[in-house]
Amino acid sequence: MNAASGAQRPAGGSPGEVLALIRDRPATTRADLARLTGLARSTVSQRVDALIEHGLVSETADRESTGGRPPHRLRLRTEDNVVLGVDVGATHCRIALTDIEGTIVEVREDQLLVSKGPEAVLSHVDRRMHEMLTATNKPLTAVKAIGIGVPGPVEFDTGRAVRPPIMRGWDDYPIPEFFTKRYDLDVLVDNDVNVMALGEHRIARPDVRYLLFVKVGTGIGCGIITERQLHRGAQGCAGDIGHIRVPAAHDQPCHCGNRGCLEGIASGEAMARRLSELGHEASSGRDVVELVAAGNMHALQLVRESGRLIGEVIAGAVNLFNPQTIVFGGVLARVSEHLLAGVREVVHQRSLALAARSLEIVPARTAQDAAVLGAGILAIEHYLESHNVNLRLTAT
Amino acid sequence: MNAASGAQRPAGGSPGEVLALIRDRPATTRADLARLTGLARSTVSQRVDALIEHGLVSETADRESTGGRPPHRLRLRTEDNVVLGVDVGATHCRIALTDIEGTIVEVREDQLLVSKGPEAVLSHVDRRMHEMLTATNKPLTAVKAIGIGVPGPVEFDTGRAVRPPIMRGWDDYPIPEFFTKRYDLDVLVDNDVNVMALGEHRIARPDVRYLLFVKVGTGIGCGIITERQLHRGAQGCAGDIGHIRVPAAHDQPCHCGNRGCLEGIASGEAMARRLSELGHEASSGRDVVELVAAGNMHALQLVRESGRLIGEVIAGAVNLFNPQTIVFGGVLARVSEHLLAGVREVVHQRSLALAARSLEIVPARTAQDAAVLGAGILAIEHYLESHNVNLRLTAT
Repeated sequence: MNAASGAQRPAGGSPGEVLALIRDRPATTRADLARLTGLARSTVSQRVDALIEHGLVSETADRESTGGRPPHRLRLRTEDNVVLGVDVGATHCRIALTDIEGTIVEVREDQLLVSKGPEAVLSHVDRRMHEMLTATNKPLTAVKAIGIGVPGPVEFDTGRAVRPPIMRGWDDYPIPEFFTKRYDLDVLVDNDVNVMALGEHRIARPDVRYLLFVKVGTGIGCGIITERQLHRGAQGCAGDIGHIRVPAAHDQPCHCGNRGCLEGIASGEAMARRLSELGHEASSGRDVVELVAAGNMHALQLVRESGRLIGEVIAGAVNLFNPQTIVFGGVLARVSEHLLAGVREVVHQRSLALAARSLEIVPARTAQDAAVLGAGILAIEHYLESHNVNLRLTAT
Repeated sequence: MNAASGAQRPAGGSPGEVLALIRDRPATTRADLARLTGLARSTVSQRVDALIEHGLVSETADRESTGGRPPHRLRLRTEDNVVLGVDVGATHCRIALTDIEGTIVEVREDQLLVSKGPEAVLSHVDRRMHEMLTATNKPLTAVKAIGIGVPGPVEFDTGRAVRPPIMRGWDDYPIPEFFTKRYDLDVLVDNDVNVMALGEHRIARPDVRYLLFVKVGTGIGCGIITERQLHRGAQGCAGDIGHIRVPAAHDQPCHCGNRGCLEGIASGEAMARRLSELGHEASSGRDVVELVAAGNMHALQLVRESGRLIGEVIAGAVNLFNPQTIVFGGVLARVSEHLLAGVREVVHQRSLALAARSLEIVPARTAQDAAVLGAGILAIEHYLESHNVNLRLTAT
């Protein structure tokens, strides 16, 4: 027999695991927790008391009990613990108020140019947050964390964009501090593709261990899920496939200063440029999608050829990473039938047979909500984890 | 503040964690274990008793104690628990008997062609295992698991080579069963680059979270460490960079049936072929290394140019994966000065600045022992983990 068994690990009993047992409801009493974790009763009590003190869990006497001392039921306080998931796009801003189980409570979307700069965009987010709290009758203190996806490379540990090509005025701007100066909460910032990958994974494909989420819009980027977690890499910039040099392609100059980058020849912007050279009216990926929908043959051929070029880079990623599923999102995924035909053609020709054997190449299921869901989940998972760490520091 | 704190997680108290606390020596008594894990005394006793029953831990009265009931000391039984680490190369077979703390006890190396087929090679391993057990005066039952690295793609879950180009007769052969039919132990099989990556990581660079180990020998392959674990991917064949198409290179046919593969133009074999076309005597990577050492200018230029071609593919891997360290091993790493100069040149030109900023590109430290150490560690980690699972099945 090769390899370790896939059997589940025991619950163990760290504070976070105690919380997870309550959230997922195998444990509704202190006695359940002691039984499921093997922890001493005194340790369970210490951890549950801390969760109650932090307002995450409530404990109420069970009135349905008949005779004897009624057991006390433990429950996650979702109504008092919410997060904000923010999707800052090149030309829009979508915001969702989400409870800590990941359910969207309120959502707002506005047209807003990211190039207006961080103060304008983040002030807008701040105003919308207050409106949504008022609309749902929640106090500001209910917001435990904010997750934000932005359209550019982010150094995850500091929450700053690093030389983002399409975010004028945002380079090195301390995004988290805009909020942490005003409120007592944590702010997580990541690039848009990472939060989309997280949203798609947690909501639509939680059982996939190795997933690539490829966004094809104005630019091209990739979010990586490995062992069900986001892989950000050493500097937090993993997945930047837009500037990988495409094998067997023309050495078209790219705005990054190099030649032959995938983004420079296969993105929505590159397709629109090529179509307008051919005399069609197109200035964005959205226009390319509309031309395809209208049956324009040039647009259709171009989307398929872009799929092949993306396939050249994805074939390398398949050999390196051996994913189980590759999901395509971004505006060009609306014509995924044509785009993915090109991708599949090259991937199956160029990738190792073993890796390509049962590889899924599919459009995203979460559609327009991928980013707000993912940003919200980023905030929730961080809040529960940081809480876990805090508990450990106070518990002996 | 962005991101979760890097603080250590609490010990928790699963059977494996109890074992780790004993092995790493923060816990030498049952009282230590109860204190460090927060587990009930009865749970600690149950788990320690199971570890003693399985022969992994011994408990002896401490004679140095003065007065009162002497405490009982817990200790890992390294002398009765060993594994075999096997490095099957194209033309050699190196075998190490290693204790479960990862220390090599005995080692043997022989010239042996992998193309002799599985029966011949595995019978040789079996004979050498018995010799080494006799030499160290250990019974067969002391061998708890065998780890084997082979020079070809492996489906890790079944331990079978999958269409391996240089392992004649091994395709789909059930390697683990050769031993499991004879003995009561588990056998883990992985490709040579994965076990080298594991050996280099655990022994020389345990603190690196994201590492690529690139082997440049007869072929070219890559082992991936992410969050300190081997990343094998969905089918266990991640890291197969030898058949990624090289951007901006001639479309040389490759033995895999495609054109322009990295291995077809930059491997030791490809360099030797090119040198012999130029009139030099070279039939293997080893010959290329010797020509470079002798100051042959063609060989030197070729190694540097191969470094550049490898750099083209590695630049893409850096953008996708954002590693902290890239380690080079294999026979061509003996001329790493020239090889890595070419790699660094292209990686720094083509990779995202943020990802390349503090990237280390270095030769391996574990040298010829990387594979046997890694194969041994694969066996040890599996044995302790499977043991952990067994314990959980017996403990209530």
